[in-house]
Amino acid sequence: MWTAIAETLRREIVEGSRQPGDRLPTEAQLSRRFGVNRHTVRRALSRLGEEGLVHSRRGAGAFVAARRTEYPLGARVRFHRNIRAGGRLPSRRIDHLEERPATAEEAEALELGPSGRIVLAEGVSFADGCPIALFASRFPAERLAGIAQALAEVASVTEALARVGVGDYARRSTRIGGELADPAQAAKLELSPGAPLVWTESLNVDPGGVPVEYGFTYFSGERVTLVLDHS
Amino acid sequence: MWTAIAETLRREIVEGSRQPGDRLPTEAQLSRRFGVNRHTVRRALSRLGEEGLVHSRRGAGAFVAARRTEYPLGARVRFHRNIRAGGRLPSRRIDHLEERPATAEEAEALELGPSGRIVLAEGVSFADGCPIALFASRFPAERLAGIAQALAEVASVTEALARVGVGDYARRSTRIGGELADPAQAAKLELSPGAPLVWTESLNVDPGGVPVEYGFTYFSGERVTLVLDHS
Repeated sequence: MWTAIAETLRREIVEGSRQPGDRLPTEAQLSRRFGVNRHTVRRALSRLGEEGLVHSRRGAGAFVAARRTEYPLGARVRFHRNIRAGGRLPSRRIDHLEERPATAEEAEALELGPSGRIVLAEGVSFADGCPIALFASRFPAERLAGIAQALAEVASVTEALARVGVGDYARRSTRIGGELADPAQAAKLELSPGAPLVWTESLNVDPGGVPVEYGFTYFSGERVTLVLDHS
Repeated sequence: MWTAIAETLRREIVEGSRQPGDRLPTEAQLSRRFGVNRHTVRRALSRLGEEGLVHSRRGAGAFVAARRTEYPLGARVRFHRNIRAGGRLPSRRIDHLEERPATAEEAEALELGPSGRIVLAEGVSFADGCPIALFASRFPAERLAGIAQALAEVASVTEALARVGVGDYARRSTRIGGELADPAQAAKLELSPGAPLVWTESLNVDPGGVPVEYGFTYFSGERVTLVLDHS
């Protein structure tokens, strides 16, 4: 009996008649609708919770969970391809683009000399129009002459790098931590201040091993699942 | 001038006369101590911030940052080895150990039949005595007869698996997201409720590809950096 109830609710969620964020009817209402006791309803909701379709907030009831965006991490991370592989429409917006001297940290990561300069691109990444991450990418300005203009003209980092002669690149390393969104980050991601962020610090290199991009991405911890396949 | 001030403060932190969590003197105090203007002090603090040695809280001043624990993620994740590789002393405490029927999600992950049973081990992982993560690991109870007793007797999962005949295992996949610590998680991790957690969902398999462990780990996002080497 409870599996049939779970199946009915699952169909309503998957087919879209219940949307992410919608509150489900109460246990009492579902009991009446299906003509079963509350224990049976609870078992059905519990199954949907295990499947990640529903989440319960103490005292507030059960809600349709937002569909998480899966984001594969590996040697070949490509934002647009990653999002499209999950059946979503990727887009990016650059809010800030500047060229300036590298800090010590940036110069070390990008293997620049003491007076090296970088192009910094900051902005927001979206899946189906929903903001999922902030990015702050640094590119070596002299090594990649014209990169600032390329980034201003095309949305994709892959395409911008291709325009300045980097036809291929690979991820060398990723470091991952967690922090809380500050008010500015929260506003851009359409989250509440204090929402959980998962940040990644990453380095991309060209086929000769020369660094071409070093940066940080701040993913919404609730909207994105980073996926590693170790095989 | 500011590099010399940064160097002096760096030495005080690295050599231990300033400890993680200590508040640094104010900008005004540092200006007086070094006989420079505040702009110069700010530049030195900014450099230490970039290096991850110091973090500033708005209105509260600058603090010596906790040394983060690096935790490599790959096909061969071993908790004790990972922590020792970072020059720290690993330890684990199991708070809860039970055998029970698998949920649908557990049965699917561990490839169990419909009446499959699991052993659940929940507890806390430490580096140098500081709690860095909570774990909730599921093991196939029938396939690994004796695993509950082995887990109760030895701290290391690797050693417990070896006792029940699993001499080697490898990580097949890891999924990563972020959430806020609830009060119970915060208490066990000695964090404030609402502190950022990075969770991982992982599956370990034996050399024949048969699942031997499925579980979740909740890392303190502030104390741990997950490290991926894609080469």
